[in-house]
Amino acid sequence: MSLSLPLKHTLPLVLSMGDPAGIGPEIILRAVRECPELLTQLVVAGDMATLRRASLITTGTQERASSALMLADIGSLSDWPLVPPGCLAVVQACAPTGLVPLGQVSAQAGQVAADCIRFAAHAALHHQARAVVTAPIHKEALSAAGVPYPGHTEMLQALAAEHLQKSLAELPVRMMLSCPGLRTVLVSIHVSLREALQAVQREQVLQTLLITHRHFQATGFENPRIAVAGLNPHAGEGGLFGQEEIEQIAPAIREAHALGLNVSGPHAPDTVFMRARQGAFDVVVAMYHDQGLIPVKLLGLEHGVNTTLGLPFVRTSPDHGTAFDLAGSGLASAASLLAAIDAALNATAVV
Amino acid sequence: MSLSLPLKHTLPLVLSMGDPAGIGPEIILRAVRECPELLTQLVVAGDMATLRRASLITTGTQERASSALMLADIGSLSDWPLVPPGCLAVVQACAPTGLVPLGQVSAQAGQVAADCIRFAAHAALHHQARAVVTAPIHKEALSAAGVPYPGHTEMLQALAAEHLQKSLAELPVRMMLSCPGLRTVLVSIHVSLREALQAVQREQVLQTLLITHRHFQATGFENPRIAVAGLNPHAGEGGLFGQEEIEQIAPAIREAHALGLNVSGPHAPDTVFMRARQGAFDVVVAMYHDQGLIPVKLLGLEHGVNTTLGLPFVRTSPDHGTAFDLAGSGLASAASLLAAIDAALNATAVV
Repeated sequence: MSLSLPLKHTLPLVLSMGDPAGIGPEIILRAVRECPELLTQLVVAGDMATLRRASLITTGTQERASSALMLADIGSLSDWPLVPPGCLAVVQACAPTGLVPLGQVSAQAGQVAADCIRFAAHAALHHQARAVVTAPIHKEALSAAGVPYPGHTEMLQALAAEHLQKSLAELPVRMMLSCPGLRTVLVSIHVSLREALQAVQREQVLQTLLITHRHFQATGFENPRIAVAGLNPHAGEGGLFGQEEIEQIAPAIREAHALGLNVSGPHAPDTVFMRARQGAFDVVVAMYHDQGLIPVKLLGLEHGVNTTLGLPFVRTSPDHGTAFDLAGSGLASAASLLAAIDAALNATAVV
Repeated sequence: MSLSLPLKHTLPLVLSMGDPAGIGPEIILRAVRECPELLTQLVVAGDMATLRRASLITTGTQERASSALMLADIGSLSDWPLVPPGCLAVVQACAPTGLVPLGQVSAQAGQVAADCIRFAAHAALHHQARAVVTAPIHKEALSAAGVPYPGHTEMLQALAAEHLQKSLAELPVRMMLSCPGLRTVLVSIHVSLREALQAVQREQVLQTLLITHRHFQATGFENPRIAVAGLNPHAGEGGLFGQEEIEQIAPAIREAHALGLNVSGPHAPDTVFMRARQGAFDVVVAMYHDQGLIPVKLLGLEHGVNTTLGLPFVRTSPDHGTAFDLAGSGLASAASLLAAIDAALNATAVV
């Protein structure tokens, strides 16, 4: 083991492997092949055998001998500084129970995915990780494994709240979706549109504004320009098309102003994203899932990044799922994962 | 007057002038200056004095003498074939009550705008116009003039229904918004999101599908590929995030199938527009105003076109308002109006 290490951040980015039956493991390998400089920045919390398979998937047979990436199995994160250059650091974050079949939902795969997330969150909460990037998981596999969370966001919130000895209500989180040129934070996510309407409450909107403001300040924006979308067409047109702007959203904006936040709106939803893209705002607070996700996915599904705001650490992920139909093909793009890694590195570069 | 006329369609496109205090008159003049070949295709239903002012606004003082566009005041549409080449045909569609101040709401301006719309609709309903293109009007001016319609769509629907001796319910119309690469038809438009949820009923959705199918068939699509967006995140995720997809939208799609329509969905709203843009569908039926307008405006506000489907004639308009702040400056872009004219010409080229 060489000791002439390149300069490293004092803490690694920890990358959870995701569902071992999905494209997570292979896009991780593909990402570090495409950007070898990342090898000095991250540790994968995963399963060694699964990652070896992914390494073979992402290497053409002709070139295997020469270009197979060395995986360095480190016992704990404290060994990370000793990993030799050119190796991908891996920590075995789950019981090594053998390979799962690719492209299939299984309880075993769900358990592996959950163990990797727990490892990564634990590392971040104990200040052993610079940030967490999560590869995609499968909701049904998690559920089959008896993991009581619908997804990453809820699981990470619960783990962080437990660590901080807080209730979930005391640690509100929000989802931010971003792509080149547009960032949006959502007031609510995985609920029906009917329930999303109910969530447009002054308190909930204000909390979103505060979480957004804090995140952007913590990641290098001195005075982030936050635009707030209305809920109704034309932001209600002065009450003609709905009262939520008058009764809930505008009062939240006034309170945010009083607290010194640089917030504007409520803006007409059908033009505020266009204006943000043109540079008028740093981020748009959207009132419901599709209001924010339609523009972000339209502009850049390939480079979409999901960031959880409100956690005591930075967490990003690619904006796509496990793509079981592609798993094992070696064809899945690492673009969104690379964008997520880049976002996590940038967000923690200035903290 | 020369009689060696260039080849013309047998009927003109009738262009209603819009609010005389807004940018409508000047973007009409700008459009025909930028595309002089349009002079052989259209008649403006407007006010002669207002259009003369607009002609001066859109001509630099230096070039006035040489390039001032000749306005040909025709007494009735039947004189259109006699208009000499290079002249813009204008029919005085309102009482010539003098110029209104630019950039201001007034009852007089609202009256002029309404008279021009009535003239254009009358011409189309009596088969004297190939199609109608409407320049922007101002809702408050219309209201000040005592015109009992919030906008073009409702007014044209009422005029057509009256002409056909039908009730409004017997002549349902829908708004289509389009830009290069994306077309979307809306189940509901200017109502609160709460009311829009109520409008997502099987009958209403099916009616939208039928109107959409008929329009596309009438304008050259043999078997139009219609995608239906869901209402809820992930199109309800099998009932987890709302029941409207299961109870209302899917049954409407099944009925449309039974009638032979090429309809798919309900699709996840956050990716269906992206897929349509990539060419997977000819049109997306959106469940509410902002679901459809956010993607269209993001992709191309400059070239957005609003088309009313369900009328007994083709009607398009630019996807912007009167822009009182720009009126008189000569700076307003004619791009969206030109796109609307182009859409009307294309839609009627194959009828």
